[in-house]
Amino acid sequence: MNRVLRISPGDRFLECEAGITNAEVQRACAAHGLFWAPDPTSAEYSTVGGNLACNAGGPRAVKYGTARDNVLGLRAIAGTGQSLRTGTATTKGAVGYDLTRLLVGSEGTLAVITHAILKLLPLPSHRRTLRAGFTGVDEAAAAVAAVMTQPHIPCALEFMDQAAVGLACGYRDVGVEAAVGALLILEVDGDAEMVERSEQALAETLRASPGLVELKTAATAEEAQLLWTARKALSPALRQLAPLKVNEDVVVPVTRIPELVRGLQTLSAEFAIPIVNFGHAGNGNLHVNLLLDPAERRQADALEPCLAAVFRLVLSLEGSLSGEHGVGLAKRPYVAWEIDTPTLDAMRAIKQLLDPAGILNPGKVLPAA
Amino acid sequence: MNRVLRISPGDRFLECEAGITNAEVQRACAAHGLFWAPDPTSAEYSTVGGNLACNAGGPRAVKYGTARDNVLGLRAIAGTGQSLRTGTATTKGAVGYDLTRLLVGSEGTLAVITHAILKLLPLPSHRRTLRAGFTGVDEAAAAVAAVMTQPHIPCALEFMDQAAVGLACGYRDVGVEAAVGALLILEVDGDAEMVERSEQALAETLRASPGLVELKTAATAEEAQLLWTARKALSPALRQLAPLKVNEDVVVPVTRIPELVRGLQTLSAEFAIPIVNFGHAGNGNLHVNLLLDPAERRQADALEPCLAAVFRLVLSLEGSLSGEHGVGLAKRPYVAWEIDTPTLDAMRAIKQLLDPAGILNPGKVLPAA
Repeated sequence: MNRVLRISPGDRFLECEAGITNAEVQRACAAHGLFWAPDPTSAEYSTVGGNLACNAGGPRAVKYGTARDNVLGLRAIAGTGQSLRTGTATTKGAVGYDLTRLLVGSEGTLAVITHAILKLLPLPSHRRTLRAGFTGVDEAAAAVAAVMTQPHIPCALEFMDQAAVGLACGYRDVGVEAAVGALLILEVDGDAEMVERSEQALAETLRASPGLVELKTAATAEEAQLLWTARKALSPALRQLAPLKVNEDVVVPVTRIPELVRGLQTLSAEFAIPIVNFGHAGNGNLHVNLLLDPAERRQADALEPCLAAVFRLVLSLEGSLSGEHGVGLAKRPYVAWEIDTPTLDAMRAIKQLLDPAGILNPGKVLPAA
Repeated sequence: MNRVLRISPGDRFLECEAGITNAEVQRACAAHGLFWAPDPTSAEYSTVGGNLACNAGGPRAVKYGTARDNVLGLRAIAGTGQSLRTGTATTKGAVGYDLTRLLVGSEGTLAVITHAILKLLPLPSHRRTLRAGFTGVDEAAAAVAAVMTQPHIPCALEFMDQAAVGLACGYRDVGVEAAVGALLILEVDGDAEMVERSEQALAETLRASPGLVELKTAATAEEAQLLWTARKALSPALRQLAPLKVNEDVVVPVTRIPELVRGLQTLSAEFAIPIVNFGHAGNGNLHVNLLLDPAERRQADALEPCLAAVFRLVLSLEGSLSGEHGVGLAKRPYVAWEIDTPTLDAMRAIKQLLDPAGILNPGKVLPAA
């Protein structure tokens, strides 16, 4: 049984063993009016160690950052067997090199994280959910950029393209108007007055955005829940549309989202593979879902070239191959497209330093030299 | 002439050469209603490269984080001569190891930062400054912890002990009541309504804190400015009290501030060296100023043992030797007191890797093995 070792509400930190689940940590924090920012959909079964190793995010990252931004210190065992203690129990620290963030996101290839000191935040008492339907992707993406440059940063800013909206509506009738070509879900949090004010500010920004078709605030917690249930059902729902769903997790600067989605539509037609897009638009982080039947030879053959074209598109837009899912095995062959040789060499040298025998998560993240 | 290479307001990033000053970056951002979070007092002459290399903070770090939290990517030349390109232009990224934050705070010992992509934030239109006087340090520190666990995080939460208050009042009569044993300066920012609401929320929290002697909101921008001028005059004013001012920059968890200040009072008496404390209380980051005359043999002899005792005290409170000033030469002998041998060895190995000839800022940060 993995444990919370201590929680210091006045210092807003929690120290725990890395094997504890994200949800267990959230429950321990909530008892003190606090929370830990990373909120992956897998919170009930993913562990804090896993969240840190993969630099987990989730919808809330748009306001609160990812695991990297919400950790103070670590204890870890390197591949050399050395016990490392990185970081501090304080929210500032300028002594030595930042090994904490070197380990966060390294997918267990440098060291095994055993304990963590997590940075906590005050748990908002209120939240409110809005949805905004736009005529098309360009209009929705312009609205995302407008929202992100005003001071009321939402705690979620999700995007669905037309196919995703259709799927979500098929799952639960959320009553989206037919003219909606792209949908945003926005959530604000804070105390009662902050939420009221933030909702007004976002509504003003959205109403001033060209192409708005509908703007609705969830009147009740149930209505908000319905919207999130439909959003979270997208990923499993896609599995029923095609025998194989290949889910990529690309990220581009927010203002490049329209080019990304248009480019994906072109590739979908070119390779005859349906592509459905949704995700965390406030960070420019879209989940790109290629739907296919591997038994169909033509589609099976097209998968790899189509994926490669998707990655080339993303990189041409100054994006990254992964916003929060990481590299693992599947994206490893493409890493050298994003990271140049000297930088990749420096990473390989650090891997060699901390895990010279290559015993930690071998064959992951970094492509062979 | 160092330059802003581009600014993308919709993506909230700015790319620049590292030799540009912090203030030049702020002016370029302000034209687009944005700002870069680090706000060191040296903003007019310190460079972005220096801010990143030292992981600069400033008062605003309590709400917005330090340089480490507000950078997306870097270009840098390692000691090996390799050109590194780290990070992304996006606010999320999970490909490869986080070399960006390995370089941030490494004080130029691993690589010379030449370019940076900075993460920007929406510039608040309004701000308001409060000051809260408490009977003593314990009461003020408890109020700091209470402020930091409610949802209206101030954009500054500064602390002055009684000696610092006396100095500030001597510089400019800010009218602090005689019963005040410790003073907090708090600032909130946002749009007009947010500022109004945040001020109310902080005032409620402060009034509920035991030991409050006075609570005043600056009625005008001039009154707020007066308070900040007095706060910022502290550091130069100290130089006039004694021929030598040794300024340490320690950090402890917020709830340990009372123990720190009490401990410092004991050490001041024991070593007969006056110590004045002020700083960024929201982060537990206090500037500890030892005032002495090196011509006085007894004081000169007491300095090193007194400093060592200060650092032992800080570490016994789970603190760190430096919150934002870094290690450089002066604190290098003490680094091994904070960081254990295997972790320090890992840092030394990384230094050896990226700067094998030891040509970058030699003799800084890491103590010899």
